[in-house]
Amino acid sequence: MENYPSILLENVVKELSKLPGVGKKTAVRFALHLLKNEEVEAENLGNAILKFRSEVSYCNVCKNICDGEVCEICNSPKRDSSIICVVENVADVMAVENTGQFGGLYHVLGGVISPMNGIGLNDLEITSLIQRVQNGGVKEIILALSPDMEGDTTALYIYRKLAPFDIEVSTIARGISVGDTLEYADEITLGRSIVNRIKYTA
Amino acid sequence: MENYPSILLENVVKELSKLPGVGKKTAVRFALHLLKNEEVEAENLGNAILKFRSEVSYCNVCKNICDGEVCEICNSPKRDSSIICVVENVADVMAVENTGQFGGLYHVLGGVISPMNGIGLNDLEITSLIQRVQNGGVKEIILALSPDMEGDTTALYIYRKLAPFDIEVSTIARGISVGDTLEYADEITLGRSIVNRIKYTA
Repeated sequence: MENYPSILLENVVKELSKLPGVGKKTAVRFALHLLKNEEVEAENLGNAILKFRSEVSYCNVCKNICDGEVCEICNSPKRDSSIICVVENVADVMAVENTGQFGGLYHVLGGVISPMNGIGLNDLEITSLIQRVQNGGVKEIILALSPDMEGDTTALYIYRKLAPFDIEVSTIARGISVGDTLEYADEITLGRSIVNRIKYTA
Repeated sequence: MENYPSILLENVVKELSKLPGVGKKTAVRFALHLLKNEEVEAENLGNAILKFRSEVSYCNVCKNICDGEVCEICNSPKRDSSIICVVENVADVMAVENTGQFGGLYHVLGGVISPMNGIGLNDLEITSLIQRVQNGGVKEIILALSPDMEGDTTALYIYRKLAPFDIEVSTIARGISVGDTLEYADEITLGRSIVNRIKYTA
């Protein structure tokens, strides 16, 4: 797809195809969709992107994105402020919230340690997490990071940093997904699910 | 995904998920990508969308999008102006151009007749096509429309409109794709490929 009939099209396709998982063909499809629909739709999209990126702010406490100084979750009197769930990014907060199983607060790291991608300790919100624990009132930290090498490394680092404090540190359970069959589960997951087996209690 | 931590995020996700094939999860991923990268990337994307939609113009002759009054293809002295390939949209022009097999001009209809989607004859660039033929110099029209009911209906309509003129009207060949196996080809395609078989010439 290199014979663009218009520089404007070429430019919008170039920018759209920087989005994750979007190739040139998809980008052309997006552009033609915008062209076929009312101009106001393209205006809304363009302006929403500009406004989002320039005006978004971060919660002073948990570093999640929010519209003010402190996010709704941190501000809510209904949430248990003694438990903090540590996650990588905003999408993870939304995912955990959607389960309806967690009533505590969050802490958004902004990524995991990843030397390959140039993400070091100073790029993550680890110091601010330790600060929250130092401020007192926290009884438990749940590490809900990706179950891969980078997530595990980050979890271990945070776990060690938290060792001096008298708090519980846990990680979310790894195991066979609900609905999965053992036959098709990978060995590492199946292995961990056996090691971390849960006893039936009467 | 309904617990948006920020109205700005909710808004950009709402707009992004209007793009074809983009659901809310993908839209959140796009938004987080924009957040993670330099602000200039989001600015470029937003501005490219706004500029594309508001400034794009159409070729006076073939109705393809272009940056001036007449597109490069229509303006080129190297193209054979006696053959016009009729396509649905801009992406189709790009696709045919990429084959390198066509040296004539194009005519972009802007869609196909589709009563279900409210697209009637007056929404398509059919009158302008007939006008081009009336102006003279055209010897052949190739109809390169989608091989479905709507494409076939549109092709038949145009074919009848062109009947009074002394020109050849053809449609692109339907058949087994290069690399396909007969076993997995659908019956209609395989049937057409037998009816429209091509004789070996010595």
